[in-house]
Amino acid sequence: MQLFYTPDIEEAKVYALNEAESRHCVKVLRLQEGAFVQLVDGKGGFYTARIAKADPKHCALEITAVERDFGKRPYRLHIAIAPTKNTDRFEWFLEKATEAGIDEITPLICGRSERRVLRTDRLFKRITSAVKQSLRAYHPVLNEPIDFADFMKGLPAVPEGGKPEVLRCIAHCGHGPKHSLKETAQPGRDVLALIGPEGDFTPEEVAEALRCGFIPLGLGETRLRTETAGLAVCFELSFLNR
Amino acid sequence: MQLFYTPDIEEAKVYALNEAESRHCVKVLRLQEGAFVQLVDGKGGFYTARIAKADPKHCALEITAVERDFGKRPYRLHIAIAPTKNTDRFEWFLEKATEAGIDEITPLICGRSERRVLRTDRLFKRITSAVKQSLRAYHPVLNEPIDFADFMKGLPAVPEGGKPEVLRCIAHCGHGPKHSLKETAQPGRDVLALIGPEGDFTPEEVAEALRCGFIPLGLGETRLRTETAGLAVCFELSFLNR
Repeated sequence: MQLFYTPDIEEAKVYALNEAESRHCVKVLRLQEGAFVQLVDGKGGFYTARIAKADPKHCALEITAVERDFGKRPYRLHIAIAPTKNTDRFEWFLEKATEAGIDEITPLICGRSERRVLRTDRLFKRITSAVKQSLRAYHPVLNEPIDFADFMKGLPAVPEGGKPEVLRCIAHCGHGPKHSLKETAQPGRDVLALIGPEGDFTPEEVAEALRCGFIPLGLGETRLRTETAGLAVCFELSFLNR
Repeated sequence: MQLFYTPDIEEAKVYALNEAESRHCVKVLRLQEGAFVQLVDGKGGFYTARIAKADPKHCALEITAVERDFGKRPYRLHIAIAPTKNTDRFEWFLEKATEAGIDEITPLICGRSERRVLRTDRLFKRITSAVKQSLRAYHPVLNEPIDFADFMKGLPAVPEGGKPEVLRCIAHCGHGPKHSLKETAQPGRDVLALIGPEGDFTPEEVAEALRCGFIPLGLGETRLRTETAGLAVCFELSFLNR
């Protein structure tokens, strides 16, 4: 069944697709009155709807069923990741992370970042298309790019001698002990992971992260590309929470 | 340090790069006599070598150190996977699986496969480049495409009432119980996983696989694309064996 992403749907009994989606539904897919479609609101709502009027500009739908918290995961994953030099690799990461399971993505501009500007509108579309493809009712949040230092400043303070509520970890290639998510993450606990650029985080960035309660994260024996490391976190956490 | 893939290196004390690699080493990278490079043979050998003669056609190297079984994993993973319609997605799978950890890949031509022909020479190059990028001493084997039925016929018979030595699992989207690798795989045990095409395996293919001792594999709650499902198996197994 055809799935539409309709973030503005809310509690209505009837809903009209916007012009682009109406055209797609009626002209491209040639769906007619009485046909059923599925809608997701990106916030966990999964709707089934019947086409009440197959108007190619304002296709009217009648909601027949709603499921809340559809496919809700028992944890929340936020990855702050340096955009890759090659945007294709970053877009690929967004698509695959959406499939594997992620809630929030922040493009992190680091000292060694070669790419500092991103077209987030285009990236958002890539995420939406993965949401539809993988039948997800939750749409990951994509933040605007932010400098490493500003990102760290914006984090909630950690209580003295305590642990941050969300597990904070940083994947870097420098020396020193690393910990697998197997040792540090618990099922149900939220995670914030930092992934560095092609040239890695600077030693100052790593030190700053450790001061802010981040744990150095190991993702296996081999050197992973930025986008692969980000995806590894998504898959490992999903596996751990299963 | 620059890494070269030299599958023919064997036990020699001296070794000459082939013409293309010599040109790359001497002309492109401008490495000179006395500089050190790294070589992998794709079978677990990791070599350090000194440039003895920076000849742009036959760059002569003197091996100064060899490490065997470099980065050897405690398990062997073979994935037989239907090539995706869009070759980029399949190439991407090969690259990422190499980074995440895989030993053998068989392109599997299924009843619903839309793509039945592949340029394995080109795909092999993509794997080699990922081997170098991720500093791996093992080069995954890429087999020629094979029909589903022929692949099943070629498998070793399972002893009556027994279990196959290698864990066999099939990821499909049909109904029925599925088992996570968490329940079925044990650290150290080799795995053979089947991943179907965009339209999934046919019910007959699934039934044939079950007859041959394959276990239906679950990879989480959401619908994954072919290439994402293949990669999920690589990451989950790597995580399980850590």
